[in-house]
Amino acid sequence: MSEKQKWIDSYLAIRAYSEEICRPLETEDYVVQPIGDVSPPKWHLGHTTWFFETFILLPHLPNYQQFDADYNFVFNSYYETIGARVIRTDRGNLSRPSVADIYRYRKCVDKYMIEFVDGGFLTNDLLDIFVLGLNHEQQHQELLLTDIKYILGHNPLFPAYGSTKAAISYTAAESAYVKFDAGIYEIGYEGRGFCFDNEKSRHKVYLNDFEIASDLVTNKEYMAFMEAGGYADFRYWHAEGWDWVKRHQARAPLYWHLMDGKWMNYSLAGLMEIDHEDAVCHVNFYEASAFAAWRGMRLPTEAEWEVAADYVNWGQRWEWTNSAYLPYPGFKKEAGAVGEYNGKFMVNQMVLRGASIATPKDHSRKTYRNFFQTALQWQFTGIRLAR
Amino acid sequence: MSEKQKWIDSYLAIRAYSEEICRPLETEDYVVQPIGDVSPPKWHLGHTTWFFETFILLPHLPNYQQFDADYNFVFNSYYETIGARVIRTDRGNLSRPSVADIYRYRKCVDKYMIEFVDGGFLTNDLLDIFVLGLNHEQQHQELLLTDIKYILGHNPLFPAYGSTKAAISYTAAESAYVKFDAGIYEIGYEGRGFCFDNEKSRHKVYLNDFEIASDLVTNKEYMAFMEAGGYADFRYWHAEGWDWVKRHQARAPLYWHLMDGKWMNYSLAGLMEIDHEDAVCHVNFYEASAFAAWRGMRLPTEAEWEVAADYVNWGQRWEWTNSAYLPYPGFKKEAGAVGEYNGKFMVNQMVLRGASIATPKDHSRKTYRNFFQTALQWQFTGIRLAR
Amino acid sequence: MSEKQKWIDSYLAIRAYSEEICRPLETEDYVVQPIGDVSPPKWHLGHTTWFFETFILLPHLPNYQQFDADYNFVFNSYYETIGARVIRTDRGNLSRPSVADIYRYRKCVDKYMIEFVDGGFLTNDLLDIFVLGLNHEQQHQELLLTDIKYILGHNPLFPAYGSTKAAISYTAAESAYVKFDAGIYEIGYEGRGFCFDNEKSRHKVYLNDFEIASDLVTNKEYMAFMEAGGYADFRYWHAEGWDWVKRHQARAPLYWHLMDGKWMNYSLAGLMEIDHEDAVCHVNFYEASAFAAWRGMRLPTEAEWEVAADYVNWGQRWEWTNSAYLPYPGFKKEAGAVGEYNGKFMVNQMVLRGASIATPKDHSRKTYRNFFQTALQWQFTGIRLAR
Amino acid sequence: MSEKQKWIDSYLAIRAYSEEICRPLETEDYVVQPIGDVSPPKWHLGHTTWFFETFILLPHLPNYQQFDADYNFVFNSYYETIGARVIRTDRGNLSRPSVADIYRYRKCVDKYMIEFVDGGFLTNDLLDIFVLGLNHEQQHQELLLTDIKYILGHNPLFPAYGSTKAAISYTAAESAYVKFDAGIYEIGYEGRGFCFDNEKSRHKVYLNDFEIASDLVTNKEYMAFMEAGGYADFRYWHAEGWDWVKRHQARAPLYWHLMDGKWMNYSLAGLMEIDHEDAVCHVNFYEASAFAAWRGMRLPTEAEWEVAADYVNWGQRWEWTNSAYLPYPGFKKEAGAVGEYNGKFMVNQMVLRGASIATPKDHSRKTYRNFFQTALQWQFTGIRLAR
Repeated sequence: MSEKQKWIDSYLAIRAYSEEICRPLETEDYVVQPIGDVSPPKWHLGHTTWFFETFILLPHLPNYQQFDADYNFVFNSYYETIGARVIRTDRGNLSRPSVADIYRYRKCVDKYMIEFVDGGFLTNDLLDIFVLGLNHEQQHQELLLTDIKYILGHNPLFPAYGSTKAAISYTAAESAYVKFDAGIYEIGYEGRGFCFDNEKSRHKVYLNDFEIASDLVTNKEYMAFMEAGGYADFRYWHAEGWDWVKRHQARAPLYWHLMDGKWMNYSLAGLMEIDHEDAVCHVNFYEASAFAAWRGMRLPTEAEWEVAADYVNWGQRWEWTNSAYLPYPGFKKEAGAVGEYNGKFMVNQMVLRGASIATPKDHSRKTYRNFFQTALQWQFTGIRLAR
Repeated sequence: MSEKQKWIDSYLAIRAYSEEICRPLETEDYVVQPIGDVSPPKWHLGHTTWFFETFILLPHLPNYQQFDADYNFVFNSYYETIGARVIRTDRGNLSRPSVADIYRYRKCVDKYMIEFVDGGFLTNDLLDIFVLGLNHEQQHQELLLTDIKYILGHNPLFPAYGSTKAAISYTAAESAYVKFDAGIYEIGYEGRGFCFDNEKSRHKVYLNDFEIASDLVTNKEYMAFMEAGGYADFRYWHAEGWDWVKRHQARAPLYWHLMDGKWMNYSLAGLMEIDHEDAVCHVNFYEASAFAAWRGMRLPTEAEWEVAADYVNWGQRWEWTNSAYLPYPGFKKEAGAVGEYNGKFMVNQMVLRGASIATPKDHSRKTYRNFFQTALQWQFTGIRLAR
Repeated sequence: MSEKQKWIDSYLAIRAYSEEICRPLETEDYVVQPIGDVSPPKWHLGHTTWFFETFILLPHLPNYQQFDADYNFVFNSYYETIGARVIRTDRGNLSRPSVADIYRYRKCVDKYMIEFVDGGFLTNDLLDIFVLGLNHEQQHQELLLTDIKYILGHNPLFPAYGSTKAAISYTAAESAYVKFDAGIYEIGYEGRGFCFDNEKSRHKVYLNDFEIASDLVTNKEYMAFMEAGGYADFRYWHAEGWDWVKRHQARAPLYWHLMDGKWMNYSLAGLMEIDHEDAVCHVNFYEASAFAAWRGMRLPTEAEWEVAADYVNWGQRWEWTNSAYLPYPGFKKEAGAVGEYNGKFMVNQMVLRGASIATPKDHSRKTYRNFFQTALQWQFTGIRLAR
Repeated sequence: MSEKQKWIDSYLAIRAYSEEICRPLETEDYVVQPIGDVSPPKWHLGHTTWFFETFILLPHLPNYQQFDADYNFVFNSYYETIGARVIRTDRGNLSRPSVADIYRYRKCVDKYMIEFVDGGFLTNDLLDIFVLGLNHEQQHQELLLTDIKYILGHNPLFPAYGSTKAAISYTAAESAYVKFDAGIYEIGYEGRGFCFDNEKSRHKVYLNDFEIASDLVTNKEYMAFMEAGGYADFRYWHAEGWDWVKRHQARAPLYWHLMDGKWMNYSLAGLMEIDHEDAVCHVNFYEASAFAAWRGMRLPTEAEWEVAADYVNWGQRWEWTNSAYLPYPGFKKEAGAVGEYNGKFMVNQMVLRGASIATPKDHSRKTYRNFFQTALQWQFTGIRLAR
C-alpha cells in the first residue's frame, strides 16, 4: 500500500470513528452543555474539522474555499487570539450551525483532505501537523464519550447510550505490590512514532525505592472508604479537597446515586447497581488522594508509574498520579498556534497516566501525559496505590 | 355550533398556533437556553401540555393513563413543591425528551382533551381551569417568540426566524398628548369573559390631572437620547439602573449592534439597519425611566394607562408603567396550585400594559396586567410618555 | 432666644447625640463592616460631617480651608459622580482616617459651622440644605444604632452595647382592629416644618373599606407562625421570598438563636431569652408578608397606614407596608446633588411607616416614608396587620 | 547560660518582635481585612498566642486556666475541626476581642510560658512543639508585614508604615549565569536544627545541565517587559494566567500606580517613584513565568535553586520556582493537629525559595520551602531566571 493510501486510510478511519461514536444520539443530544467542562457533541465534530481546515486546507491547499467564514468564531477553541467579535457566545447556547450543517462541513473537509493527500500536498513538512490533527481528533473521541455520558447521565430520564455492560466494566484483579529499587531511570518518549510535545524529551530521573499496586482500586474497596466515613473526616483530605467536599456535599463518586437505600451507578448502558468488582471510576484527584491517605498509602508519581508500566495492568482508567503537570527538562513550546497545544496548561493540573475504556484503541502509550484540574470527575478516572 | 364544539375549536386553534410558531425552527433551536429567563422552545411545548394533563386529564378524565410519569420533573415549572428528586436539572441541559417525543406528548394529550370535552366531562366547575389552560398557552406563545428571538439573535450566525419585515415593524405616529382631568376613575376587569385573577376586582382610584402621549417613543427619539449621552449621565437613572448600565456597559437597547459605525438591529427577519420611525423595542424599565427623565417627563401609572387606553394607540409594545406589580384591593389568591399563578410574583416587578406584536391576537385587553423585573429587555417592550 | 442661637443649639444637640451613641464603643467597633448594608460607625461620623463641609462650608463660608481633600474619597457616598480614583475602596477596609482623626474633623467642622451661623451666613436660601443636613445626621443616628447592633451581634463573644432592657423592649397591647370607610382621603406632608421631598405633595387617594390593627404583632404571635411550620410552607411566601428562605435556610428573625433548645435573642443589652410580649423585630418584607398570609390577612398600604396613624399605637418598629416606594403625584427631583437624595431609590423597595426605638426623638412624623429592599432585616422592623 | 534560660530568651525575643512590628500601627490598623488572604494584625497576634496556649499550656501546664474559652472560636485557624458554632465569622468583622484584650492575652500566656519553661515542664518530648510554636510565630511576623503593607497600601490616603527607604530596597547586581553540570544531587534538610516537616527527608534528585542567574530581575528589566506589551500578548502566559490578566486588567505588579504618566510604587515608606535598580517585587507566578517566557528563559525548579543557593545572591525576595508544592519522597504527615501544618496544602500551589526583606533574621535557610497559590502577589515575591 502506498504511503499516501496509508494516510488516507488512517484519516478516514479516525474521522469515521468520531461519527460512529455519535450514531446512537438524538439530534438534541448533540446540542447541550450542562457544565462548562463538557462540550456539546456537535462542537467536538465541528472543532476537529476546523482544525484540519484551518491548519492544513486554508494555508496549504491551493484554491481551497473556506466552507463558512463564520465557523471560525464557533469552532475555534482559542478565540481570544482572533480579535473583537460582536457577540460573546457559549458553546451550549448555539443551536446553529445545525447538526446536519456540521456533517456537511465534515464531508466537505474530508473530500478536500483526501484530495490534499492524494494530490501530493502532504509533504514531510506538513506531516507533523497532519498527524497532530489525527491525534487531536482521537483526544476528542474520548471527550465525546465522557461528555455524552455526562449529558445523558444528568438527564432525569437517565437514557442509556447503548453500550453493553460487557463493553464498559472491568473487573480489577486482586492487587499485588510490585517492588522497584532506588536508582536512575529514564522516562519520556523515545522512538519515531507520534508523541505530544509534553512527552519529550526522554530524560533521567532519580527514584527512591517504591512499591506499586499491580491493579486498580475496586468499587468494593472504595465503598469501604465511604462506609468508614471517609467523606466526613477532614484528616484524609487536602484543605482544598475538604472545601470541595463541603461545598458539594460530596459523598460518592460521580454518577453514584443512593436510591431506596441502594447505591446505583449511571453507566453508558443505563442505571444499574454498583458492580463491586469493577474498578472505581469518576473520582477526582481529591478523592483519589483521600482514599490513598485512608489506606495509609499514596498515589504514585508519574515517573514511578511510567517505570512500572510494563509490570502492572493498565488501560481501563486514567490514573491520578501525585505529579503536577509541569514541563520536562528541555521542553520547548513550538511556535505558532500549535505551540499553544500543551505548554500553556502546565499549571495547577495533575498528571494522569494510562488510558481508559473511552480511549481510542491506538491512542495510548506508557509515556502519554494526560492532565486535568483536581476537582474534575467526569473523565473515566481511577486509583492505583503506591507506597 | 354546540358549546362543546366551540371549546374544541378554541382548544385546537390555540394548540395549533403554538406549533405553527415553531414551524420555522431546526430541531436544535428547540433545545438551548442561553440565559435563565429564556426557556427552550421544546420546554414551552411540553409545559403547556403538562398543564392540561396535570390539572384536567389526570384528576378528571376517568381511566386516563399518564403519558410519562417522569415528565412531571421536566415540565413542571413549580417543582420545589414536588419533593426530593435525584438530580437538579436546568431546562437548557435536557436533550431528552426529544422534540419528537414532545410532539407525541402533545398529540396524545390533545386526543384525550378532545375526548374529555366531547365526552361531556367539561362541567361548569372545570371550565375555569380549562380556560386558564388556554390563556396559559397563549402566554407561552408570546414567550416562544421572544425566546426564539433571543436564541437566534444571540447566535453569531444571526439566522433569521423568517418573518417579513412588514410583520414586525410598527411606524409610530407623531405623538400628541391627551389630557385627563383629576377625579375618581374605575379600573380593573369588569365583564363576563376570562381575565386573570390579578385584574380583579374593579375598583375606584383617584387620579390627579395628567397628560399621556397618544403614541409610542420611536427609534429616532431614543437614538437622540443615546447621542445626547443618556447612557453616560447618572442623573437620569435610578441608582439600580445606573449600576446595571455600568455592570453591563449598556449603551443601546437589546439586539442593537454598532457595526462599522452603523447601528444594526437583529429582528425576526434577520439583521438590518435601524428603522428610525419604528417604535423603540427591547428596553428595560431602567432605560424607559431614564429616557423619560431625560425628556423631562415620566412613565404613566397603570391606572392612568388604563383610563387613557381608549384614546391612544396601543398593542405594538408592552409599555413599562411606573406602577409596581401589587395586588388590587380585595385581591384573593385562589386555593391550590392555580393560586400560585400570579400572587406570588407581586414583589419587585413593574407592571407593563398594552400588548405587543408577539401577543396572540385574542389575548389582549386594556385591563391586562403584564409584569417583569426591571432589568429585563428580552420582551417586546417600549415606552409611552406621560406628564 | 435668637433665631441664630436656636439653629446653633439644634445643630450642637444633634451633632452631640451622634457622638453620644458611639460613647460605649471600643475604637475597634468603629471600624468593621460585616456586610455591605452595614457601614462602620466611623464612616457615619465622617460622612455626616462631610455633608456639612461639602454642601455648606466649602461653597458658602468665605475662606474656609478644606480639612483634608482626600476625605471626599472616603466619606462621599456618591463617589461614582466624582470621577476616576486610583484605588477602589470598601468602607470596611479603611483603617485610616483614624477614629481620633474623625473626631478632630467633626470638631473642626462644628467650629466653622457655628461661625457660619453666628456670622450670619445662614441665609434663607441656605436654610433648606442646613436643615437637610440635620435630618440627614438624624437618619444616620438610627443607622449607627442598627449597624452597631449588627457588628456586636455578629461577634461570637456577643458583647452588649450597654442599653438597659427597659430601654429597648416594647410590650405590644392586645390588638383591636380599627375600621375605616371607603372614600377619598388625603396623604402627604402638609405644614411648614421640614419634610423630605418624597413626602410631597399632599394629594388625594381613594381607599376601599379597611380595618387595621391597633398594635404590632408580638414575638408570641410570630413564634406561633414558626411553630406552625411557616418557614417550611411555600404557600405563604412570595416566590422571591421562598428563594430567600431556602438560600439562607431562614427559620427565625435576625438575631434569634436556638441555643440548647431555647430561643435566645441578641439585643443591645446582650443575649437574652425571647420576651414573648415584645413586638417582633428584625423581620424582612418577605417574612412580614408570609406571616400576614398565614394569618389570612395582609399588610396595610402606606396610604391606609397614614390615614389610620392617629388611631393606632406606633413608633416602636418600622412597619412594612405593602406599598412599593414610588413617587407621589407631582414629585419633582430637585436639581444638583441634593436631588439624588430620594428619587433615585424609587424602584424595587418597599415603604416602611412609623419609626422605631432607634429613631431620634424628634425625627418621626406620620407622613415619613422610610424604604428598604425586601430582604433586609437589620433595621428595627416589625409587622402590623390589616384586612 | 542554662538551656532553660536560652529557651526563655528565644521565646521572649521572638514574642517581642511581633509586637515591635505592630508598634507603628494605629488601633484601627489592627482590625481590617481588605481581602481574604490578608488577616488583621490583631488576629496574627492572637492566633500565635492561641498556638502556645492550645498546644502547650492547656494540655501540659498543671492547673492552667484558659484565658477565655471563646478565644478558640476567634483565633483557631482550623475551626472546621471544632464543630458547630452559632455564628459564622470572618476575621475582618470582629471588633472584639479588642487590641488591648489581645495584648493582655499575650501577656498572660507569656507569663505562664515562662513559668512553664522555668518550672521544668519543657521536656524533650515537648521541645518539638515548642520550637514549632516559635517558628510559627516567625512565619506570622512575615505575614504581619505583608498584611500591614496591604492594609495601608490599599487605603486612599496611602499612609506610610514608617520604614526608611534604605531598609526596604535592594539593588540587584548585574546578573551573571552560574552553570551546573548534569548529575545526581541531594536536596532537603540535613542537620540537627529545626526544620519544617516538608523539608524532609534529604534525598537524591537527578538534574540536567542548567544555568541560573546570580541575581534577581530588576524593576528596569520588568518595566521593559511591560513596555514591550508583555501584559497584552497571550503567548507568554499560561492559559490561567491570561485569564487572570484579563479579569483583573492587570498591567503592572501590585502596588504600582500610574500617576500623571509616571509609575509610582507604594512601599512601607510611603508612595514613591519606581526605583529602577531595585529587584522587582509583588509579582505572582503567572507574571514571573510570563516574564521568563518573554526573555526566552524559564524559572528554576526548586531542586536547581537549592543546589545553586550557595553560589547566588538570595534573601531579598521570595523567588517563584517552577516546582509544584508536593511531598518529598518519604514525607509523612505527623499525627494530630500539628500534622495539618503543611501536608494538606500540597496541591495547586507553587514553591518559592529564598526569603525576603520581611523574613525574620534567623528564619531562613536554603532548604526552606515556602508556597503560595499562583495568583497571589501580596508577598514580597520576585523573579530569578534559569535556562
